Amino acid sequence: MDYKEVELKDYEYILSVTGNDRERVFFKDGINEDYSHDELGGIRQMPDVVVQAISTEEVSSVMKYAYENNIPVTPRGSGTGLVGAAVPLKGGIVIDLSKMNKILELDEENLTLTLESGVLLMEIGKYVEQFDLFYPPDPGEKSATIGGNINTNAGGMRAVKYGVTRDYVRGLEVVLPNGEVVNLGGKVVKNSSGYSLKDLIIGSEGTLGIVTKAILRLLPLPKKAVSLLIPFESLERAIETVPKIIKSKSIPTAIEFMQREAILAAEEFLGKSFPDKSSDAYLLLTFDGNSIEEIEKDYENVANICLECVALDVFISDTEERQESIWSARGCFLEAIKALTTEMDEVDVVVPRNKIGDFVTFTHELECKSNIRIKSFGHAGDGNLHVYILRDELDEESWHTKLSEVMQIMYDKAKELQGQVSGEHGIGFAKKGYLKQSLPNECIDIMERIKLAFDPKNILNPGKVCE
Amino acid sequence: MDYKEVELKDYEYILSVTGNDRERVFFKDGINEDYSHDELGGIRQMPDVVVQAISTEEVSSVMKYAYENNIPVTPRGSGTGLVGAAVPLKGGIVIDLSKMNKILELDEENLTLTLESGVLLMEIGKYVEQFDLFYPPDPGEKSATIGGNINTNAGGMRAVKYGVTRDYVRGLEVVLPNGEVVNLGGKVVKNSSGYSLKDLIIGSEGTLGIVTKAILRLLPLPKKAVSLLIPFESLERAIETVPKIIKSKSIPTAIEFMQREAILAAEEFLGKSFPDKSSDAYLLLTFDGNSIEEIEKDYENVANICLECVALDVFISDTEERQESIWSARGCFLEAIKALTTEMDEVDVVVPRNKIGDFVTFTHELECKSNIRIKSFGHAGDGNLHVYILRDELDEESWHTKLSEVMQIMYDKAKELQGQVSGEHGIGFAKKGYLKQSLPNECIDIMERIKLAFDPKNILNPGKVCE
Repeated sequence: MDYKEVELKDYEYILSVTGNDRERVFFKDGINEDYSHDELGGIRQMPDVVVQAISTEEVSSVMKYAYENNIPVTPRGSGTGLVGAAVPLKGGIVIDLSKMNKILELDEENLTLTLESGVLLMEIGKYVEQFDLFYPPDPGEKSATIGGNINTNAGGMRAVKYGVTRDYVRGLEVVLPNGEVVNLGGKVVKNSSGYSLKDLIIGSEGTLGIVTKAILRLLPLPKKAVSLLIPFESLERAIETVPKIIKSKSIPTAIEFMQREAILAAEEFLGKSFPDKSSDAYLLLTFDGNSIEEIEKDYENVANICLECVALDVFISDTEERQESIWSARGCFLEAIKALTTEMDEVDVVVPRNKIGDFVTFTHELECKSNIRIKSFGHAGDGNLHVYILRDELDEESWHTKLSEVMQIMYDKAKELQGQVSGEHGIGFAKKGYLKQSLPNECIDIMERIKLAFDPKNILNPGKVCE
Repeated sequence: MDYKEVELKDYEYILSVTGNDRERVFFKDGINEDYSHDELGGIRQMPDVVVQAISTEEVSSVMKYAYENNIPVTPRGSGTGLVGAAVPLKGGIVIDLSKMNKILELDEENLTLTLESGVLLMEIGKYVEQFDLFYPPDPGEKSATIGGNINTNAGGMRAVKYGVTRDYVRGLEVVLPNGEVVNLGGKVVKNSSGYSLKDLIIGSEGTLGIVTKAILRLLPLPKKAVSLLIPFESLERAIETVPKIIKSKSIPTAIEFMQREAILAAEEFLGKSFPDKSSDAYLLLTFDGNSIEEIEKDYENVANICLECVALDVFISDTEERQESIWSARGCFLEAIKALTTEMDEVDVVVPRNKIGDFVTFTHELECKSNIRIKSFGHAGDGNLHVYILRDELDEESWHTKLSEVMQIMYDKAKELQGQVSGEHGIGFAKKGYLKQSLPNECIDIMERIKLAFDPKNILNPGKVCE
């Protein structure tokens, strides 16, 4: 596909769409280098124009112009993605949605929140809690936009009990590649009215349409939460407990696992000390409900299961402060591990939750065999692992060789365990090859045709997901 | 699109696929008339061949043959659909999946149930309850197959608290229109690995692929349930209470509304008496949880809200027998109303739940104005109404004129209230025109292109949904 080279007159047109607001439209050398990448290392490409949109009409006008003139467009939220989905691989226009950050309506009769797609995840929880309401998805990266979360179908820690972003999106306003604006779904609770285009947009990483608004489903806020921090002699011991917890039917809100090394890194990163670091491995669980009575049977039951499975102790945190100190450490693992090395890349596989022990053991053996540092933490309760491969002192060539070798081995293992390439970070640019290996050709072919069904000129976020 | 005329040799080939099992393959005049329709009145078309498949391999072989020879194929479960989705409009082959009815695996460590798509909904609840597990979706028609439920994204009564079928499908085995077998999703809890083809198949009414197996997500079985039957002076009074209940954050499992007329019809149909029928209108609510203590605060709160909203009384049923007597009446409304008239057709709109009162009032006025009987019942808690228009003694022509007139008015009203054409029954053949009116042309175009992305020869269930 040949795209039009972006010229000054294209910039001028886009500028005119914004009412000539030079604070929000940038051209070539005037563009901040940050727009050339997201949190994926090693791939950078500058766009030709950046527009910080403030309305759906602006997004639509820019998209319509790009469609007519055959200019590639890459939508961008906070740029916190880990797979390069926001990198403008073919140059062209970047539409930055982070200024579309208004909360538009809290509807208490329908329990929905309508908002623009640039609202940050951290704002949503804070806002709805004032009304005793709850937006359950809880991805670690709180400075991501809700648009980014929708585009990766982000999961987060509470997926064990509450599910993922998809489960909380009732409706979307989307600008299609030709600039048309459509509403998919709405405030309705049920919908069987044709193919679910809404569910196709969710997780499509900005390749099928640009999400400009969303209607989110809310729940009543659980009034009580209790966290358990449970030390084990080894990570294997900790993780083999998880299927027993699930089987017990006392379902926690979250089950995370962590190792001493990540805890030490987090302590250093935060400058705060963690309640316990004497053991090699920990499970961290939360239970929530409307009263302590409602949850205590569940957490006592789970505490007993863990002790039978040779947990070394069970620390119960029922005050907000203590819980905050534990979860803030968990929240910064990614940043803390990053600070341990020169560069890193990640694998975000998801396996059936009773296979997570097998996968973790496998990566430990792989670390020993392959002579490269591999750190993992993640969502033990939902089978979604975040495994980080650290570059340390490797030179460029050895790093790439080693990285792709180790990654290939891990994706092969995930496939063997009936897992999937990505649990929540998406495919973007970096994981395209692994997606292709993991799915039947038929599925990739259908995805490519779906891409063309939305975007016949292939101008929206080209080079991503299945292309 | 020109299809091949089905000949004896096609039948013989399909027969050979089944190992020449003449008990399961039927040709032309040997086909039972039931295969010409589902529960939608007024449209009948006989297929040329029926095969009652017993394995994915059979479905795949028949589909491959049909693809190579350009023969239309219509998949069918129990035939309980209400919109003609299982009617073989173009003749050809019907693949009946109701003999693929094996439960394959209950995985207690992953809380999943793997089963063939012909298993009846009523079997699923019964089966998993033995293991203290729970499959929440609860559509009224218990003799539908799970494959049918997946293909309409059926909702049912418990959607208020638990969501719809889509929320409980983790993975699907699907035979594509060219006969290839693919697995979408799996036992994994999270998945961001390319476009969600699984979510596209859900609700696609057998037009994109044939679901042969499913992996369902289960929850722990709630140990206690309490039902409240709440009489009101009028339906308007009953329904205007619903947004207040939602706003109170004491979320019931189900909120149904019913009128005396439906109750009397149900009593007659079942030959059993209903606990109370002195009032014109009722709300029926259920609360579930793990102990009476856990739910009593919620149901007492809701009972008080209803009494403040001039409910005439609140009947609390906390024994299984009493609840059964109420819910079995609710379960037979469709059949009971059917017995009241000669023929009927239905509208399955869904509106935001705080608009359901407006819609019900509107249909009452419409009934008066249009001089035709209109009966409704439905899911007050999720905004999904089932409105039945009764033919009674109208002649063929007057019936069709009146029916389409009244339906058009109702769909227009639903659109005005930001509702959707179908909450859970789907589009099939009967609602195609209304779907087209309700969505932007862009969306219909994309749906048509998605159809072709899966089925370039348009042989799978042609003439349905968006085509």
